[in-house]
This record gives sequence, structure tokens and C-alpha cells, in this order.
Amino acid sequence: MAPAGYEPLKNEQELEGLLEPNTTPPRTPRSSRSRRLVFSIVALLGVVGVTAFYALPARNARYAAEVSSGTGSILGDSDEHLTRCPSNLPPPATPPAKTNPFASLTVPETVAIHEWVSSPARGLNLTEGTKAQLNDNFIYRIEAYRPAKKDAVRYLDNPDTTNPPERYAHVVIHHGAKAEPYVQDYLIGPIPVSSKTSMRKLSEIYHRDPIPYNSRGFSHATELSPILLKVMPALAEATEELFGGSVRGLPNDTLVAGTSAPFSFDGSFRRSWVSWRRNVPGPWLHPVNFFQYIDFTGTDPEHWKLLKIVYNHQVFDTIEEFLTAFHNGTLKRLPDRPDQDPAAGDWSTRKRPQPFAPRDLDHLPGPRSISFAGLRFRVDRALQYVSWMGWGMYLGFDRDMGLSLWDLRFKGDRIIYELAPQEAIAQYAGNDPMQTTTAWLDRYFGMGAGVRDMVPGYDCPHEAVYLPATTTNFEGSITRERAICIFEQDTGRPITRHTGYSEGEFGATRGYQLVVRSISTVGNYDYLFDYMFMIDGTIEVRLSASGYLQGGYWEPAQEGYGTAIRETTMGSLHDHVINYKVDLDVAGEDNSLLFTSTATETITQPWFEDDWGSEVIQQKISKKFIENENDALLKFPPNLQGGYSLVNREALNRWGIPRGYAIHPGYSPIHNTVVGSKRLLNNANWARYNLAVSKRKETEPTSSCQWNMHLPGHPVVDFHKFFDGENITQTDLVAWVNVGMHHLPQAEDSPNTRTNLAASSFFLTPLNYFDYDVSMDSTNSILLTAPTKPGDAWSYDDYGVAPAHCIPPAVAPFEYLGVKTFGLDGKLAPPTTAEEMRKSAELFHRIKVEL
Amino acid sequence: MAPAGYEPLKNEQELEGLLEPNTTPPRTPRSSRSRRLVFSIVALLGVVGVTAFYALPARNARYAAEVSSGTGSILGDSDEHLTRCPSNLPPPATPPAKTNPFASLTVPETVAIHEWVSSPARGLNLTEGTKAQLNDNFIYRIEAYRPAKKDAVRYLDNPDTTNPPERYAHVVIHHGAKAEPYVQDYLIGPIPVSSKTSMRKLSEIYHRDPIPYNSRGFSHATELSPILLKVMPALAEATEELFGGSVRGLPNDTLVAGTSAPFSFDGSFRRSWVSWRRNVPGPWLHPVNFFQYIDFTGTDPEHWKLLKIVYNHQVFDTIEEFLTAFHNGTLKRLPDRPDQDPAAGDWSTRKRPQPFAPRDLDHLPGPRSISFAGLRFRVDRALQYVSWMGWGMYLGFDRDMGLSLWDLRFKGDRIIYELAPQEAIAQYAGNDPMQTTTAWLDRYFGMGAGVRDMVPGYDCPHEAVYLPATTTNFEGSITRERAICIFEQDTGRPITRHTGYSEGEFGATRGYQLVVRSISTVGNYDYLFDYMFMIDGTIEVRLSASGYLQGGYWEPAQEGYGTAIRETTMGSLHDHVINYKVDLDVAGEDNSLLFTSTATETITQPWFEDDWGSEVIQQKISKKFIENENDALLKFPPNLQGGYSLVNREALNRWGIPRGYAIHPGYSPIHNTVVGSKRLLNNANWARYNLAVSKRKETEPTSSCQWNMHLPGHPVVDFHKFFDGENITQTDLVAWVNVGMHHLPQAEDSPNTRTNLAASSFFLTPLNYFDYDVSMDSTNSILLTAPTKPGDAWSYDDYGVAPAHCIPPAVAPFEYLGVKTFGLDGKLAPPTTAEEMRKSAELFHRIKVEL
Repeated sequence: MAPAGYEPLKNEQELEGLLEPNTTPPRTPRSSRSRRLVFSIVALLGVVGVTAFYALPARNARYAAEVSSGTGSILGDSDEHLTRCPSNLPPPATPPAKTNPFASLTVPETVAIHEWVSSPARGLNLTEGTKAQLNDNFIYRIEAYRPAKKDAVRYLDNPDTTNPPERYAHVVIHHGAKAEPYVQDYLIGPIPVSSKTSMRKLSEIYHRDPIPYNSRGFSHATELSPILLKVMPALAEATEELFGGSVRGLPNDTLVAGTSAPFSFDGSFRRSWVSWRRNVPGPWLHPVNFFQYIDFTGTDPEHWKLLKIVYNHQVFDTIEEFLTAFHNGTLKRLPDRPDQDPAAGDWSTRKRPQPFAPRDLDHLPGPRSISFAGLRFRVDRALQYVSWMGWGMYLGFDRDMGLSLWDLRFKGDRIIYELAPQEAIAQYAGNDPMQTTTAWLDRYFGMGAGVRDMVPGYDCPHEAVYLPATTTNFEGSITRERAICIFEQDTGRPITRHTGYSEGEFGATRGYQLVVRSISTVGNYDYLFDYMFMIDGTIEVRLSASGYLQGGYWEPAQEGYGTAIRETTMGSLHDHVINYKVDLDVAGEDNSLLFTSTATETITQPWFEDDWGSEVIQQKISKKFIENENDALLKFPPNLQGGYSLVNREALNRWGIPRGYAIHPGYSPIHNTVVGSKRLLNNANWARYNLAVSKRKETEPTSSCQWNMHLPGHPVVDFHKFFDGENITQTDLVAWVNVGMHHLPQAEDSPNTRTNLAASSFFLTPLNYFDYDVSMDSTNSILLTAPTKPGDAWSYDDYGVAPAHCIPPAVAPFEYLGVKTFGLDGKLAPPTTAEEMRKSAELFHRIKVEL
Repeated sequence: MAPAGYEPLKNEQELEGLLEPNTTPPRTPRSSRSRRLVFSIVALLGVVGVTAFYALPARNARYAAEVSSGTGSILGDSDEHLTRCPSNLPPPATPPAKTNPFASLTVPETVAIHEWVSSPARGLNLTEGTKAQLNDNFIYRIEAYRPAKKDAVRYLDNPDTTNPPERYAHVVIHHGAKAEPYVQDYLIGPIPVSSKTSMRKLSEIYHRDPIPYNSRGFSHATELSPILLKVMPALAEATEELFGGSVRGLPNDTLVAGTSAPFSFDGSFRRSWVSWRRNVPGPWLHPVNFFQYIDFTGTDPEHWKLLKIVYNHQVFDTIEEFLTAFHNGTLKRLPDRPDQDPAAGDWSTRKRPQPFAPRDLDHLPGPRSISFAGLRFRVDRALQYVSWMGWGMYLGFDRDMGLSLWDLRFKGDRIIYELAPQEAIAQYAGNDPMQTTTAWLDRYFGMGAGVRDMVPGYDCPHEAVYLPATTTNFEGSITRERAICIFEQDTGRPITRHTGYSEGEFGATRGYQLVVRSISTVGNYDYLFDYMFMIDGTIEVRLSASGYLQGGYWEPAQEGYGTAIRETTMGSLHDHVINYKVDLDVAGEDNSLLFTSTATETITQPWFEDDWGSEVIQQKISKKFIENENDALLKFPPNLQGGYSLVNREALNRWGIPRGYAIHPGYSPIHNTVVGSKRLLNNANWARYNLAVSKRKETEPTSSCQWNMHLPGHPVVDFHKFFDGENITQTDLVAWVNVGMHHLPQAEDSPNTRTNLAASSFFLTPLNYFDYDVSMDSTNSILLTAPTKPGDAWSYDDYGVAPAHCIPPAVAPFEYLGVKTFGLDGKLAPPTTAEEMRKSAELFHRIKVEL
């Protein structure tokens, strides 16, 4: 087993100038009240060699070099000799293997693959994605295809004697030019492209082949324009009178559209309800109660048609019918909206509300975390490898779901091979065509594609280290410098402690954790993906949500489907459920699924007296191994009287208990409420449970896929098909674990939902995996001993780890840049306008009609 | 309504030297990439006048004055002009009222009351508590009796024109000298003692009167010695051979005892199982599987007797029977314990395990939070009042449950009148006499009495401000300087954020919170009581547990009742449930209990086409007001599809929704598993639910009391009696809310339980209480605007709140002192030895037999 991010500090590393070794000399445990208040830290600031090791955007690194160019010492007053703190760049890491088998493709690699696939030799008759129409063939996306686990593990376990697994690319082609257009996945490799490179259909990971064209991903933000441009101008007179707006003023629309989803049941059609909203910031909160049902099946916009118009619960089959009612006075009109003045939209922005009551002392910045002795986590920016306190992991990133974590080891042993979000559903309810028919699966939109740079100092603490990520689609690639942030955090709470009086009983261990975060914005919603690593071997996986509600038009008939958050706006009732793949390898790959539960028993015991009677009612633990996949679609029992863990029955801890990791519920351990809705019939069946456990297979890499949203009746990935009666005893298992939230909106969701309540989590935590709590290893601990002489202070052993005192670096000046985009040729593309950025980011969530 | 901790920074306060007003001048919003990297902070360090305003122990305050006596400026390098950061003492607060109506008694007040009650004029025939025997009358405890709510509220709402409510003391007397001894509560006042002071029985808050003497609190750690000194020496030969120990070597016992509880069912007897353990650190993890059932009913030790001896499942009625079996070879002996060498006890200490694997970079201190611009919360040490970001509250502290919070206001309005823990049960299961019969109610031991000084820098972050607390019992008073800690914390996660492209859509607000904490150690267990205040009006109430398990002797017959954590030690299965009183006043005192739930419906809509069919399955919200107390014993519904809130039906928010506060489940929302056990029959009925809501009454101040533990069959406070059919519509309500944990112990509970998993919480959070999310008021926010010129940086408005840069103060040298004790005369008592401290802290949890 490789050393896996569990490296004691090397002399070499010390010499690299990260921290002068004399700064915090390991002191011998001692008992003393006196202590030098302040000690010198000599940071060798002149040698902060900013290389690929350092995981900061270049701009920040330049800044760091700049501010550290001064002298290393600042003359203090008499009793101090303060120097600058060590650099706040992360020290370099020592990954177990020098290749990250889960890395994304580089832009040049995608270009080479694009060229190879587009070559006439492939005979695919492709058009360039940027120029392609719906009825063209074109490459829709290109990304890395992760290696088979056995290949990756063989390499990771013996990196010095094994070659990294061969790399493959996953390419999706829209075959729009075919008589029956379809979408097809291909596997291309090995890469880099060479004479050995070949291409084959990639269909073994799906449950239908090929993928219906009607369920395809977006390729043009203007896709709906042809039909909307037929419909809306004809309605302009009415929409202007009813809603104070139309699409007549192109490009200055006063109304914008958003679609519902799914577009299809089984792929035989592509239809959507279009909901119209005022074109103001936060338009999701400004619906006007006006809907159109559009058929845009197939590739020929000439055949697309308007099927229905609904206004204020009145249903019209044609524009003419609607206009007749509008003119003849039979249209039941909504009352005038009170918020139609131009400034009224401000309430749906993040601008400070006016008037507002300033909070006491809020003009001061709040507390800020500083690693006075230098950062304690290591980052390899090139490899995207992170280690901290015995934890080590590689990072991956993809278009569908963004950040994923791989080969997670703790104290040298692999705990998890893959930890990755899979899908996020949001199923709505309501009394209008939009909310009634919407069940989003956000993988469709690309939760990785939807990641943007985080806002430094706000989305993550100032000390966070950022890593970049790149995704590629039909137009080219985009790179975000701050896609992922990593920081160590003091939870402010000891992980263990006890007040005691006998020798060794009294002490505490600080509760630090490492947080790895990425934030994805999908139209109106923001998902914060947090992975929190703790020193006892526990991980908390947390999803917090923010951003805008999907609003409905508030009227009394919506009672029961949400809550008014403004005069004519409501937040619509919906459930979020988000699924994670957790490929645990607990003391090896052969694991079993243990269900532990408790129930009440009544027993008698021979030792009782008459006083209490001889019967006792108490609880008792039952343990059961679930042996068949079909029995492994799981809910937490009532009152959480029981839980699930993966254990290795053949690897016992020192006390004879099978070593395990528990999947422990955290905040809001819920599953989806609605079962049986046609719009989510079989495309997100994982959401019916709290978790499920299946035998790991290369053919079941993900619980969903991009196209599942529009195929509820016949999904491309049918999760229930994973559960086909196989035995799951002592074999490689995957846990599919959900977080979620029943979102009953409330006024406080406006303008944005709060991450403190909109949060759900689960823990992965050692369960008799160790022989004792290994957080006791920590030297960020203290042990107190009662004084021999009553009244004296307690003596203590702080293991030589006392608070450092030095001058921390200033925070880099705030700066926020957009993404870097690359064309299909791999060249840096000219910067885009905000409107272009918006279009590619918001897709069907905010559609401006374009000519 | 008084301004309630919602005070903008006054000029006067600025002049007091807390922060030079020029340091972070409110800057006008602007859009700029350039910014001065570093700006000067001129802290007027010479004037940190340490007065009663400053909420630090005197020792720390002296230190602060000392280190700040240098010059205020440190000469930096050329581009910087760094100065020291402002003091890290909290700025003074402006409490709404200048008297804390919930304050504890001072030591002199308790002395005066003790004298007044002991005066012959009272005719109570009292003995001094320190000298009293079981058959004496003596004062058992003295504490403040909190005023009636109407009186306190009248004062708090008009403090300038109203006198504070008269103060009363609650005195408990052990009437041990009576023919039928009993315990009785008295109300004494008004205080200070004057000619108007009188005394009456306080019985209206209980359901039985008087309190049986057999359920009394501990008064002498040596209470059991008379009987144990009869039993154990006679068994010494056997215990030495079987367990390598006896109590023969007094005072150097090699065995120590712990009792089970309850001692009684209805007060008619006082009996307990004594479990013997090795006298090593962490003895709870060293049971020897040897038990004695002891009758110590009444006040005459001569009548006490041994009822049973149990060793390794063999039951003996007498010492002689046991010794006969011991000698004649019929005793089924346990195998030799592998951990009987003197050093073996180390695994049950907090000493670092040997060998251990050092963690990478763990020789460095972890990140530390610094308020570079000064602390942003205000503390009035004398009044025990805290305010932060619109929140304000008074603190209370008592012997039974420790810290309580009062008159909690947010943005000037009272949200909660009282937030206070009530009781903590721990009900065990097992296959031995100890675990089978134990159901602790820790209020009995005094969870406030069990609070000790927190360990600075470990139990709370270095910047935390500590407040003292004093409790008084029959021996005198003890004061802990660091009973409560308060700190502001960056959660590291924005409370809201969105990435958007239209004006005002993109931004984030930092997620700060204020934490108020107290830690109570009850024998083996440590409870961390956390109250986390957030800027949106939410409070998370969290209980985390650490400390030692109550271990059993591991053997295969214990299977199902816990888990082996060592060769012959198990952690025993148990449930923790902790109850809180939450006296919410939501937009006034007249509130109603709203149950909001969701269920699935199938409906048809006229607008559907044939493609999907006309039926839709979706969810819908139901709202129901629960109108009668009897229907208000509540559990969270399955899948958490529903929740409870208190709302004021007559106070609507701007959108017409009744303003409310929800009681939202957090971590581990469980209730007690076992129902019907005789040992918890009616004394903790609140634990059967997740929460309950009753009409607030002065006669129902607490859901439990000290004596409930030993009276499960006929408790002094019978919670179910609160629920007597009263209407709870638009009246003053109290929510009794539980947190808890099903504790199925595991190897990682050794040596101490981890607070990350042993945690449970609930949220109190605005539910349409406001018209929008008021955290949007925060100026610790940023608003970004897309560049006009593509490729430029985004402009931003940070509301003038940028990170401060200055030299933070050094951390005070570590120091830990014991408690200050005061005799019944109010004079500072000589310091006590560790063994004396242990005895008064651990009570029946670790009993050394004494002559």
C-alpha cells in the first residue's frame, strides 16, 4: 500500500522554505505555567517559489510574492520580536501516484480528439458544433472516461512498478442529420491520439441505445426562438396590456420565458410548458401567470406548434381563441400587479433592501481564520491532489456533476474509491401548468458546467486555496480558476474532551476539519457541495442550497402549493433530492451491507427482587446482513432506530468486530415525497429511498445521466435495473446515498434561499473500523493534571503545540474575473459579454427570444 | 419596546477606545479593482480600561493590559504601516434593562438567606449543611427563584418606568430529623432580606408534596460507606483473587463503586445496584462484572442491608453464600483479565496512545479565528447580557441545568422569553444488573453544578469571552470563572449567495454566527450545550456529548446490548434524550401551534394534452392548528414530511401569512426508544416525543426536577399532567423540544465519545415571520456587477467592509485554575485537593469507600 498522503514532514520540505523548522520546535511535554509569550517565527519569505506546486491562481500568487518581498522582520516594541507569519500558500503534497487517473482532459487533448473524430476517416459527416443546426451531426461533448477500477487500483497501489491506466475519452455525438436523428456515446482511445486510437459505441453503461434525439441536451439557447417568434408577436397587444410587456422590443424584451421539464415521456415527442416572466433581475420571482404549451418535436422548426395557451386558469387552444376572449371581454383578467413600476424588481435582487436597519458593529469585518504557522494541508495543483492530517485524495471534475473525489485514503488505507454526486432532482407541485409539470434533473443542465468561480472571502474563507476546472462542450472549453476551494477550519468545538481528576482523564482535542467545496449554479439555484474531513476518519457530505426560488403566480387558488412571498409571487412547493455515489472500500474491496437496528424487549432476570418486579423492558440491538441487492433499497427506520454500514466481515478489529464504515444521517435525512408521478416515473428511482446499495459494476458507473430528465418513462439509466437479484455478500459494493429537502417556501426565501436551513448531509464514519478513536493521535490536544498543591494552577501537556504569534499576510485585494473560454481550436476565445455568459449559463431557465 | 441589543455604535463607545473610528471608515460603495492593500489601524491600546464591563477573568484582563502597554505602533517595512489590532475585549453592551431579572444569587445573598432561614425565629431546627447527618434538618440548596413572566416582562418592556420584579429565593430543606423525614421546597422573599421577607412552602410547581426523603439528592459522597464497609472487607479475600483488588487498602482502594439509578420507584425505598470497577483512570471502562444490591432506605445506616450479590451471572443472597461458592469451587469464574497490569489502565485515559502515527503537519497549531477589527459582540459581564448583530439576551445559570437564556430579542423584538435545558436522560440496556436497571436523569446530579471551567483554546476558540457562574449547595458556593463562553464564528459558508448576470443578481453574504456555550460534566459524561445565533434570525440549539461511556463487562452474553471496545469491556447500549424549554413569543405572547404537512394527491387539470394524460400526481401542503394540549404531544412525521411552528394568527406578515417561528429538526431528531419501563415510567414522559407544546403556566416552570430520577412511578414533576385538555389557541405557549441520540457504542467511543457524531440539534427559525430574508441587511456582503467591457474584472460593492490588516494580540499564556469555593459563611474557602474536587463532582458515579 502506498503512503497515501500520510507523510511526516520531510527535512527536504522544510528546507523548501515553507516554514523555518525552528519556528515551532517540538517541545518536550512539560508542566509549567510560565511560557514565553511570544516567539519568533522566521519565515523565509524570499523563497516562496511559486511553482505548479502552489495551488493558487497566478494572480494571487503574484500578489503573494509582491507583499512578501519586504524584509522578513518588523521591529516591534521591547518585549516582542514579531516577524511575518509563514506563507499562506499550501505546502506541496506527496501524492501516492504521480498521475491522477481521474483527471479531466486538457484543452489541447480535447482539440486533438475533436480533430480525430471529425476527420473524414471516421466517416461521421460532422459539422462544427458552433455552426451546427439541429439537423446536423456534431460533437456535443468531450470528456475523460474514467478507467476501470481494477486498472486504476492496480496503478494506485503500485505506482512505482505499474503504468497508469490507459486514458480514454467519452464523446457524445448528436446525429441530427440522420433520417431518425439520435444521440450516441462513443469511447475513444487510448489517448493521446495515436495510431492505436480507435472508437467504439459506448452503450454498455445505459439501458437504451441509441438515445432519442428528443431527449437531447440543449445546444442552442435560441432553440425555442423559431416557435416563440411565431407566437409572441401575435400576442403582443394582449401581453402589453396584461403584463406591461411583450417581446416586440427585441432585443430589449420586457418578458422572458422559462420552460418546464421533462420535455418527453419516452422520447417520442419534445414538448414543454413555457412560463412567461417579467424581464427583470431575478425573473423567476416574476411570473405573470401566462403559459404556452409548445411542441418542438424533431429537427424542423416548421413543424413545431403551439398547443395551448393558459392565462389565469383559462385554457385556449389557439392564439385566435385567446385573442377573441381578450377582445370580447370574456377573458378573466388578473388584477393589476402592484409591482410593475421599473424599480419594483429590486426586491428580487441581492441589493440591500431599503430601508434597512443596520446591525450593530456590522460595519466591521467579522472574524477571519488564520493559519499562523502556515497552512496544514497540502495541495498538488497539477495533479489535483490534496492531503491533510492523514487524509489524501485526488479530485476529478466533469460537465455533468462537477467535483468528484477519488481514492480517498485515511492513515494510508483506502476508505473510498469514488465519492461523487450523481444527480439532483427538484420536483414541483402547483396549480398552474409550469409547477404541475416540472421535475428537474439538474445533471441535464450540467452541474459541473454550471460551476463558476467562487467569490473569494465570501463563498470560502480568505485562506482558502482554489483549484481550477475545465469542461468542454460543442462550442469549446471553459476554465474557471476558482472552481474548487479547500480550507482548514476550526469547528470551534473539541472533537473529544473530558473534565476529570485522575491522571490522564482531563483534556481536549481540537476539532479541526478540512473542507473541500464547489458551488454550482443551475439557472436560479445554487448548490454548495461540501466535503468535510475530520481527524477521526469521519467525512460529512453536505449539500446546501441558495439562489432563487422557482416562483409561481400567487393567488388563493395556489393555497397548498406554496406560500406568498410577495403580492403576486409565491414560492412553489418542491422536493430536492440529491444522490451521491459512495464506493466505499472498507478494509479492502470485499464488503457486506450490515443493517443494525434496535427494538424493545421484555425479559426477566434472576437477580431481581420483588421491589421492581422481575421483568425489565429495555432495548436490544439486532444485526442483519442484507445479502441481496433487491433488499438493499433502503430507508432509515422510524425514529432513526437503526442504520446501515458497509463492513468487511473478514477483517476484524482488535476486539473481534468486523471493521466498518457507517452511513449516518446528518441534516434533513429525507427521500422524495411523490412516488408514481409520470414525470419522474423511472428516471430517478434512487430518490424513493434514503440510500441503496448495489454490487459495483463498470457498467453501472452512475445512477443517472444527462438524458434521464426527458425520459421518465424509459430512461437511459434505469436505476432499478441495478438491483437485479445479485448477492452482495463480501463483494465490491457501492452505496447510493441521498440528501434532500422538502422545500415549503416562505417569505425568508426571498430574495435567496438560506444555506443554514436549506441543508442536508450524511456522515461516512468509522464503525469499529479502528480499535479506538484515532483522533487521540492529534497533538493539537491538551492533557491537564491536577496540582499537587491545592490551589495551584493545573499543569498541562500541550504536546508542544502552542498558538503561534506572528504578523499574518494581508488579504489579497478583491478581484473577480469571468471564466476563460477556448474555441474548438483550443485557442483562448475573446471574452464574452455578460449577456452571452448568462445565456450559456441559464439555458432553458431564462430564455430571451432572439431573432 | 426597548431597543434590545440593537444599538448602532455610539460615539461615546468609540471614544472609549474600543476602536478608533477612522480605522474602517464606512466607505461609499464603489466599483474598483484597485484598493490600498493595507491600511492603518490605530488602536488606542493605552486605554483598555478593564472594568466590570469587560467579560474576562481578572487574570486574563491583567494579561491583556500588560501586553498592550507597549507603543501602539510597530514600524513595518516600506509599503506597510501596520499597527496592533484593536483590543480583543468585547465592547460594552447596552442591555434594555439595567437589572437582569434572571440573575443568580450572589454569595453574600446566599449567606444572608442561609442566616435568615437558620435563625431560631424560623423554628426549623437546622444543622449546618457541612455538619449535618442524614437524620438532621439542613438547608440542601439555595438559589434564585425566577420572577413570574408577567412581572419580568412588565419590567423588561418598560425598564425606565418600572421597577425590577421583586426577587425571591428558592430554598430546599432536608427534614431528616422528622419522624417521617422528607424534603421540602420553600420560597423566601423578597430579598435582600428585610423585615418584609417571609417564607412559604413552594409546592404549586410540583405534583406531590412533600418530596420523599428516599428520593433526596446526594448530600454526602460517603453516604454508602457504612454499608459498603460492612460488605466489602468481608469479601476482600475473594475480590483480591478475582479482581486483583479490594477496599482493604483504604484510602488506596483498588476497587471503586458506582451506583445504578433510580434508587426508588415511588419513594418507599432507596436501593441501588453497586457495580464494582478497577480504581484506575476512566474506571467506567473497567467494570469487573461484580454487583451488589444494597438497601439504604431511611436515615439509619444500621438498618441498611445487602440484598444480593451477582458475579458473572451467578446470584447470591448473602456474603456467606457467595464465599461458600468461592471456596468450594462452584463459583463460575471469569477468565483472567488481560488488562490487570498497572499500565493497562492507560487506554482509558486521554494520554496519547502508544505507539501512534503522527499526522502530517500536526506539529503546527491549526487555524485560529481573529477579529482583526475588534470583537463584534457586546458583553455586560455584571449583568450577564450579550448582544450581537441585532440579537440580545440575558443569561441565567442554575444548579440543576446550568446555562439558560432569557428575553432573547432579535431586531428589537422578543422572540423567546426563556430557552433552557430541562433534563437529560440516559436509559441503558444490558445483561447485567447495572445496565439493565439504569435510567439516569442528570438533573438529579446537577448539570449546572457539574459545569467546570472550560479549557481555553480547546473547549472554545482563543478569542472566546468567558463569563462566570456560581451555584450554592449545603456546603457553600462554588464559582467558575469560565463557566460560559461566547464567540463569533465564521461558518465558512455564505448564508445566501447567487451567481447571476443581471444587475443585482450576483453576490453573497457571509455566514457568521454567535456561539454561546457551556459544558457540563456529569461523572463520566460531558455535555456541550451550544446556542448558535445566525443573522437571519435563526438559532441552532445543539447538544454534543463527549467523555466516557458507561462500560459493561464484555462477554458473549452481552451480544445485542452493546459492543466490545476492549478485551473485557463493552460500551453499553443506551438512549440519550435531552429536553429544552422554549418559551417562544412570536410577535407577542398569543401564539398558536401550527402543524404543516405534505401528502401526495392525484388531480386532473383542464390544460393537459393526451401526451401525459390528464392526471397529475404531486404533493400538497396541509395546515392544521392543533387546538388542544392533549393533541400536542408530537412526533416528526415519517420522512420528515411536516413540521411544527408557533405562529401568531393575528399578526400577519406583509403577504398575509401569520408570522411564525418553526421548530425545525437538526441532527439526530430522535425520541426515546423504550416506552413503559418501570424505571422511567412517568418521570420523563417528555422523552416519548420529539416535542410537545403546552399552555405556559407559572406552575409548570420545568418539565422535570431534581427528584424525578428516583420517583419514576410517582414523580414530583409529572410532565403528562401539563397536558390536561386546555385550549392552546392564541395563548402563551411553551414548546418542550428534544434532542437525543441512540448510542450504540463502538470502538471509536474509546477513550472518549466524539462530539461530531454524538450530536443532536434543532433550529428555531423564522417562518414567514419577516417579509423577506433579513440577513440581506448585512454589510458583510458583496454585490458584483458584470463588466461593461468583456474581459474586465467584475465591479463590486462590498459596502465598505473589507478585511482589516493589523497585528493581532498574542494568545494569553495557557492557564487553568480550579473553582473558587466559598463556605456557608461566604468566605473564600481554602483550595481543595483533586480528590475532594473529584468527590464533589462525581458523586455516585465513582464512589471510593471511606472510613
